Formats: sequence, structure tokens, C-alpha cells
Amino acid sequence: VLSEFQKHIENKYPCLKNASILLAVSGGVDSVVLAHLFSQSNLNFAIAHCNFQLRGEESDKDEKLVKELANDSKTKVYVTRFDTKDYACKNKVSIQVAARELRYHWFEQIMRENDYQTLVTAHHADDDLETFLINLSRGTGIEGLTGIPNKTSTISRPLLAFSKAQILKYAESEKLIWREDESNSDIKYLRNKIRHDLIPTLKELHPTFLENFQNTLGNLKGSAFILNKNITELKEELFIEKEGIIHIPIIKLKKLNPLETYLYELFKEYGFTAWNDINDLLDGASGKEVH
Amino acid sequence: VLSEFQKHIENKYPCLKNASILLAVSGGVDSVVLAHLFSQSNLNFAIAHCNFQLRGEESDKDEKLVKELANDSKTKVYVTRFDTKDYACKNKVSIQVAARELRYHWFEQIMRENDYQTLVTAHHADDDLETFLINLSRGTGIEGLTGIPNKTSTISRPLLAFSKAQILKYAESEKLIWREDESNSDIKYLRNKIRHDLIPTLKELHPTFLENFQNTLGNLKGSAFILNKNITELKEELFIEKEGIIHIPIIKLKKLNPLETYLYELFKEYGFTAWNDINDLLDGASGKEVH
Repeated sequence: VLSEFQKHIENKYPCLKNASILLAVSGGVDSVVLAHLFSQSNLNFAIAHCNFQLRGEESDKDEKLVKELANDSKTKVYVTRFDTKDYACKNKVSIQVAARELRYHWFEQIMRENDYQTLVTAHHADDDLETFLINLSRGTGIEGLTGIPNKTSTISRPLLAFSKAQILKYAESEKLIWREDESNSDIKYLRNKIRHDLIPTLKELHPTFLENFQNTLGNLKGSAFILNKNITELKEELFIEKEGIIHIPIIKLKKLNPLETYLYELFKEYGFTAWNDINDLLDGASGKEVH
Repeated sequence: VLSEFQKHIENKYPCLKNASILLAVSGGVDSVVLAHLFSQSNLNFAIAHCNFQLRGEESDKDEKLVKELANDSKTKVYVTRFDTKDYACKNKVSIQVAARELRYHWFEQIMRENDYQTLVTAHHADDDLETFLINLSRGTGIEGLTGIPNKTSTISRPLLAFSKAQILKYAESEKLIWREDESNSDIKYLRNKIRHDLIPTLKELHPTFLENFQNTLGNLKGSAFILNKNITELKEELFIEKEGIIHIPIIKLKKLNPLETYLYELFKEYGFTAWNDINDLLDGASGKEVH
């Protein structure tokens, strides 16, 4: 895994080699392996750990493990504690959304204040498949099937090319110490069902299922990219901004085919969910409004 | 199901109401239900049945059932027998491919000779999901995830909006007689695994999994349609035919991004599989050829 990882960084993430990196480490096997791979590859990184205080003593043990791991490898470490339940309550969001918002907001702050150029997280190929299946179960479109981005302007996920099995094997062969996330055994029914019932069955379908799935994701990402480019060009043609208000010629809009897909793609960034209302608006009386 | 089916025909397949239809009936529950729904809806149809002679006496019993069903409902019936194994052997194709080629070729012939405007098959929502999962397990692109077409110029599949469970329930409530396809119990490992292990698990993930999946397919079809339109326009711009040879300016081709996806989409109709060769060709010496 180490040499494969180093080749992967060389080919796909060349900018990580000269960057100052912030690595998100929970203390689970994925991020512990990632920290080890980074350290073995002489990358320039610091560790960031969030204690969400959701599992009492267990959360504190995670924090302790990450601090020790950083000390042992002489890596700078940032640790913070959040009152996640309180934040979720006050902002009327789920615990999961609260944790994500708190976490990414704090990472951004550390990066800004200490000049880190990129955040690295330990998402791996099985996470991609999980996300695909969760979105599939709820109903989605192409963007919901393209998985977790390998790279955005500020986040890199070099472990997406590796499977959970590879990660575990590496951790064992290197005798690394990590902590099982206890919440794995009691988090949401859906994610557990996917992880323990569905994914093993899928992997039995084909000897290289996960690799084939990664190819599929690559193809879908390419298609989604072309589609987005197409929609951006169309927007430049159709959306005319005058004094802060966007004007759209309905006659041109109505000629688009398939209309439903185009409406979704053109207006999704505005967070509309009432597609039928927009559809109705096209035939509505002048002055009709949808908010 | 009957009233839902009639509404569905009204909305999505209005041309079936005045068409002369050829209905493919195997004798399994799906096509027996479809024939019953057609007959209850006073549609103008004849039945076509292929005996592939792959399961000896069982195949003959299927043929007999379909003939009786047609007689009972006073429907015209076409029956043929194929030596499927011989065809597969001679044409070096799998039994499955042989059966499909023989079947569609024969349907076309009957339609041409007897002025049927459209062929109707009994594919249902679970078939769509099976196809999606088979392609997913092998690795695919957006077109492999968009399922079986609801409608082409000559084939309609109005049962795609209905689940296997709905079809079975209707068959039982109407006391219809059908034959279990014995090959179901011993056909390919893959399809069985998907049907008996995977799909039930997927349906447990979400109370309306199959409906959500149908929405996903609708969205993907819309995206694939836009993508194809885009590629067709690009081809008109890039592919210049002179004396039966297509010329493509490599400089323009190489500027496309993401290149791999564009190459795949532009050249897939030529049946290339050696994408890396095409990719290399772009940087090759003048006169280099790929076949």
C-alpha cells in the first residue's frame, strides 16, 4: 500500500508534495493509516482532531490516542472540543449535520490562521460506494451517483483510490494502534444495513466489483462534468441580470427538451424543491411568482 | 392495477390506443398479466410466442399455455420454434444473445409482413433494477445505468412503471394461469444473486426504494439525453466526411476536457474498446493507425 500510495500521490496529487497540509484524524483506522502513510512519505502536515463529545469517555480516549500518535511522530496537532448537541439544538439541524458544519468551519479557521493550503480527509473507496447506495436508496440524479470528490480547491482525498480492506491490512501489517468508532455499531440503521448486508453482497457479484465501481464513478464524473459545462453555457445565454434581478426569457426556456431535467439543472443552485411550481409558472399569467 | 394501467396508457402511450400491436408472450406471469391487461383495455393486439426449445417438454408446455390463452381470449397468435443452441453455436454467441437475436428478428418479420406498428414486451420495474445492478457490477457509464428504454420507435414497455409485486398480486387476484420459468431457478449465478439476495436487501433500505429508483432513472435518462445531444453537436463540428473517410482535426480533439469521457462518447458507436490506443494515437506520429 505504501508504494502504491506514493505513486498515487505522485500521479494524482502532485501539489501535495510541496504543500503545507492539514490532516483530519479521528483516531479510526482510516485516518490513522493516512497519517502513517503521510509520515512515511515525508509529507509536510499537521493533524487536526475534533472531539464532538458525543460518546463521553470514548470521545476522550479518541482524543488521547490522536495526541499520542502526533507526539510519537513529532507532528503538530490541533485539538478542539465541541458541544455538538447544543449546536444541533440551537441551529435545528441533525447531529450529523451539526458535526459536519462544526468540523469544516473549524478546519477552515485553522487553515486560514496558519497558512495550510489543503485539507486532507481519509475517505476511501468503500465510503464512495456507501454514499452512492444511500443516495440511490433515497432517489437521486447523476450528481448523487458521482461519489465524493477526489479533489476540490481546498480538500484532497487520496485514500479514495484504496479499499477499506487494503487499509485494514496495512494497519495490521504495520501494527498501528487505532480505535474502533463505537458509534459504528449503533449509528443509523441505513448505513449499517448498507455496510454489513448490502456491500458484502455486491462484492460477491463480481471478483473486482469495487474496481469496476470506481471505473463507473470515473465515467459518471466525466459525464457530469460535460453536463455542467453545458448548463453553464446555457445559463450564460438565458439568464440576463439587470439591476440585481435575473431575467429569463420563458419562450426560450420552454423550448428546452427534456424540460424537467433542464429546469432542475438550471435552478438547482437556488435551492428550489418545488419543481412542479416552476413548471406551472411557465404557463402562468404574467406577474405570477414562486418563492 | 387495471385502472392504473389504463391511466398509464392514456398518459404515456396514447398511440397504443389506435395501433395494431404485437405482444410478446412467454407464458410467464409478466407477459400473461400484460396480455390480460391489454384484453381488458380493449387494445387491438395479437400475441407472438417463441419456443426456443431449450427446456424440452417445459418449453412445449409454455407454448401450449400461450396458445390456449390466445384461444380463450380469441386473440390471433403467432408461434415459432427455434433451434437456439444450433444458432448460438454457428454464430459463436451465447445462448442468451442467440435467443435475443432470433426473437427480435422474428418479431420484426411478423410486424413487417402483417403491418403491426409496435411491439410490446412485459419488462417491469424490477427488470430495470436488475439491469442497473448487473451493469453496475461489471462497471459501466451513464448509459448503462439508465435502464431499459420505455419506448423506442418500434418497442413499447408499459409495464416498466409496475413492480413484480404488483404484477403477481394482480395475477393472483384475477386467478390467471401462468407458468413459472423453470430456468429461473438455475440461470446464471449473477442474476439469481441479484434477484434473491441483493434486491430484497435494497428494498429494505427505504420504504419506497423502487419508486425512488424509478425517479433516479428518469433523472439519469434526462441527463443522458442532454449529453447525447451535446455529443451529436460536437460530432457535426469535428467529424468531416470526405469521400467516405471521416477526418477529425486532432488539435481540436485534444483540447476537449475531460478528454477520456469525450473520446469514449465520440467513438463508442464504432465499437472501439481500446481507448488507450486512441488516446496514444493523439500523440502518435503522422500516419499511425488504430483498427
